[in-house]
Amino acid sequence: MGAPFQVASKVRDYELDMQGIVNNGVYFNYLEHARHEFLLANGVDFAALAEQSIHLVVIRSEMDYKASLKSGDEYVVSVTVERLSKVKFGFRQQVVRSSDQKLCVSALVIGTALNKRGRPYLSPEIEGLFGE
Amino acid sequence: MGAPFQVASKVRDYELDMQGIVNNGVYFNYLEHARHEFLLANGVDFAALAEQSIHLVVIRSEMDYKASLKSGDEYVVSVTVERLSKVKFGFRQQVVRSSDQKLCVSALVIGTALNKRGRPYLSPEIEGLFGE
Amino acid sequence: MGAPFQVASKVRDYELDMQGIVNNGVYFNYLEHARHEFLLANGVDFAALAEQSIHLVVIRSEMDYKASLKSGDEYVVSVTVERLSKVKFGFRQQVVRSSDQKLCVSALVIGTALNKRGRPYLSPEIEGLFGE
Amino acid sequence: MGAPFQVASKVRDYELDMQGIVNNGVYFNYLEHARHEFLLANGVDFAALAEQSIHLVVIRSEMDYKASLKSGDEYVVSVTVERLSKVKFGFRQQVVRSSDQKLCVSALVIGTALNKRGRPYLSPEIEGLFGE
Repeated sequence: MGAPFQVASKVRDYELDMQGIVNNGVYFNYLEHARHEFLLANGVDFAALAEQSIHLVVIRSEMDYKASLKSGDEYVVSVTVERLSKVKFGFRQQVVRSSDQKLCVSALVIGTALNKRGRPYLSPEIEGLFGE
Repeated sequence: MGAPFQVASKVRDYELDMQGIVNNGVYFNYLEHARHEFLLANGVDFAALAEQSIHLVVIRSEMDYKASLKSGDEYVVSVTVERLSKVKFGFRQQVVRSSDQKLCVSALVIGTALNKRGRPYLSPEIEGLFGE
Repeated sequence: MGAPFQVASKVRDYELDMQGIVNNGVYFNYLEHARHEFLLANGVDFAALAEQSIHLVVIRSEMDYKASLKSGDEYVVSVTVERLSKVKFGFRQQVVRSSDQKLCVSALVIGTALNKRGRPYLSPEIEGLFGE
Repeated sequence: MGAPFQVASKVRDYELDMQGIVNNGVYFNYLEHARHEFLLANGVDFAALAEQSIHLVVIRSEMDYKASLKSGDEYVVSVTVERLSKVKFGFRQQVVRSSDQKLCVSALVIGTALNKRGRPYLSPEIEGLFGE
């Protein structure tokens, strides 16, 4: 397994809402960006696949919001992946505030891949994510 | 109970991603907007409460993505609320495509309310959501 | 000329920033959505053209921010179009608060259309926007 | 003058639209984030000022879109500021693609600062941006 894949970043003020905290919907963006970076680092190019009409899609997300990020906060988004069935995989993800290692969001994002006909299809690159 | 509260709208093209479908993160925005309209229609003004430092916050979301909205699609977001514990409430929400009543997203969004000290506190307006 | 094309809507709370007002960047979204609705009402389908690799693109925007929209505000976005040159057209747009007709944003958005080779090309539907 | 202030980043896939390019509205976010980082690096904390009800506001933006960013592109946003009048200042900003130094967006963003009463007011920190 080893250490989870990580993407570090910093809150941008346009991501804050009127409560002065990162809007809940924005964490979905943070998680998606980290998943795509994780996939790319493992040989799966989301954008290139989309151009070939192979669509990686999310079918379920479970998110627990534990603490809020604010203006100026730096954070790390982690990603690990596990196979859930023949055609489903699950990403375990966390958003952790860098200053104090506070867990802000913990998530399970379940996805699959669809071919041009809209049928589940895990291409060899995607199969490669799950080891031998 | 009666019919659930509903907000009707139409996909905006800037909400689409490179796959030509509404980005998954955007559904969270759709759900939030419908919840705030629901609350307002029931005497709970999210923005006014935020100014008084009473913050309605989401602590967990579970979303199932069943079908995708595309450019030009009209949709309806529905909201019902139920009490889950002394300080937690759950919103059951659906996003349904108007043209064919296709269920696109089904969600459970669990929230609470926090006072200035960050302690759970359901103000009388919020208590009023759950009937006598 | 007649009356300008108009799209009415209401502020969504996730569009507000920490100042409690609609974030400046969001007005660009409001304007884009109204332009696409205007185009569609005039026989130009942005999404269908994009699928044919005919891309309507913005090359310049000038926006004056006169007043801010807040939570709960309803607004109308207006659109008129004029031809600026053989291959450029300009959209004059306004965002007006409905409650008191206050002008919030006034904009000029200049666009062109590009064909598959990235060369300016105004298709017959687009030419049709400017009358005979 | 010296070198302009710069913020480097990478396109996130949720920022792309159905044309597979960064949506025009997103550049406004890129520019805002770079301005806030620039201000912070020069002793002006946008969020802290907002909490004191001193609001830095944009009153006009002029943006020229020269080339598009795509999935995977890295870019740099630069910022310089100049005083335009007693109460107005202008940010000159560029978005440049890192791989080939291609200029993607060139912008002038004009702002002012408002005090609690909504009157223009440049606090000492803000005055400090413009040298002696």
